[in-house]
Amino acid sequence: MQLPSSLLENAVSEFAKLPGIGKKTALRLVLHLLKQEEVDVNHFSETIAQMRSGIKFCKRCFNISDSDICAICSNSMRNKHLICVVENIRDVIAIESTDQFSGAYHVLGGIISPLDGVGPNDLTIEALINRVEKEEIEELVFALNPNIQGDTTIYYIQKKLQNSTCKITTIARGISFGGELEFADELTLGRSLANRLPVESYVR
Amino acid sequence: MQLPSSLLENAVSEFAKLPGIGKKTALRLVLHLLKQEEVDVNHFSETIAQMRSGIKFCKRCFNISDSDICAICSNSMRNKHLICVVENIRDVIAIESTDQFSGAYHVLGGIISPLDGVGPNDLTIEALINRVEKEEIEELVFALNPNIQGDTTIYYIQKKLQNSTCKITTIARGISFGGELEFADELTLGRSLANRLPVESYVR
Repeated sequence: MQLPSSLLENAVSEFAKLPGIGKKTALRLVLHLLKQEEVDVNHFSETIAQMRSGIKFCKRCFNISDSDICAICSNSMRNKHLICVVENIRDVIAIESTDQFSGAYHVLGGIISPLDGVGPNDLTIEALINRVEKEEIEELVFALNPNIQGDTTIYYIQKKLQNSTCKITTIARGISFGGELEFADELTLGRSLANRLPVESYVR
Repeated sequence: MQLPSSLLENAVSEFAKLPGIGKKTALRLVLHLLKQEEVDVNHFSETIAQMRSGIKFCKRCFNISDSDICAICSNSMRNKHLICVVENIRDVIAIESTDQFSGAYHVLGGIISPLDGVGPNDLTIEALINRVEKEEIEELVFALNPNIQGDTTIYYIQKKLQNSTCKITTIARGISFGGELEFADELTLGRSLANRLPVESYVR
């Protein structure tokens, strides 16, 4: 695809660096911006730059924040002795939108994945261990994606905390609401049978 | 979806203004930028702003250009008496990538569509009529999308040029290569029968 202008070409290749955006989509986005008023495009561009330079990470839980301690950690209504351990900020947003969790978080910044070159020291695991020791944490709920890397990470952290009295749990895994039994994989179906629940706890 | 930072929220809502980008995709893009080096994000942001402020439109054909006259109009190898009329710049790029057209272009900037509030005066139709009169244009090839608005636009311009000797044609419409006859709509199949071609012109 040959573009008629080098300025256009540069903008398209910048957009095409974003995940899931190919050259054609990038061109569509750039041509859309080209149709907007210059002041709006400058606002777009400044907002992005400000976001990158101004955003902070919470010193306690590593969630995104406008200040040193994030809104969740500084909220006195939340149970600080219950920590949900997640891989990234998107997971915090997903769990917050359920309105079912009233504790605090800990964002690992990834999961242990030797194949991708991610080891325990690349994550905020040490900070988590320190928190468990110092903040009198009663329960860690792991909400990691259900795969080998997630399980490895849980196992690693559990080993590190084996002398602690902190309870360690993980979110339930099983058949999704609206899922069809016949299309569930054997592992999920097998586990959901093994971890079956009394009906009274299910129908609330 | 509640976001933990107003800077993040602003950046996400700027991205979500782009066509085809919803809030979730916008968040994914912003979090990707957040992981990049600050200098790279600044480069991204500056490239976009520069593109909007620096890009010009060719004074002759309204294609995108780095200078007053675009690379195609100023190319002496191209046939200036043959003009391909297109709706927008993306169509120029699409036709250029076929390597089958050696004339010049005219970008209308849209098509006549009263329902969307686009009339002839919102487009570069007057400039096109002037070009036909002054530049000794021999043929106008319309390459507009095959729909009512496209046909209306062709009809309008043809009426305006009825006293001119300029030949007016449109790109062929029919069954696509690789298309299946049984799935073609009646209008396309009907027209492609009515406009059937001698086989020697088809097998080149």
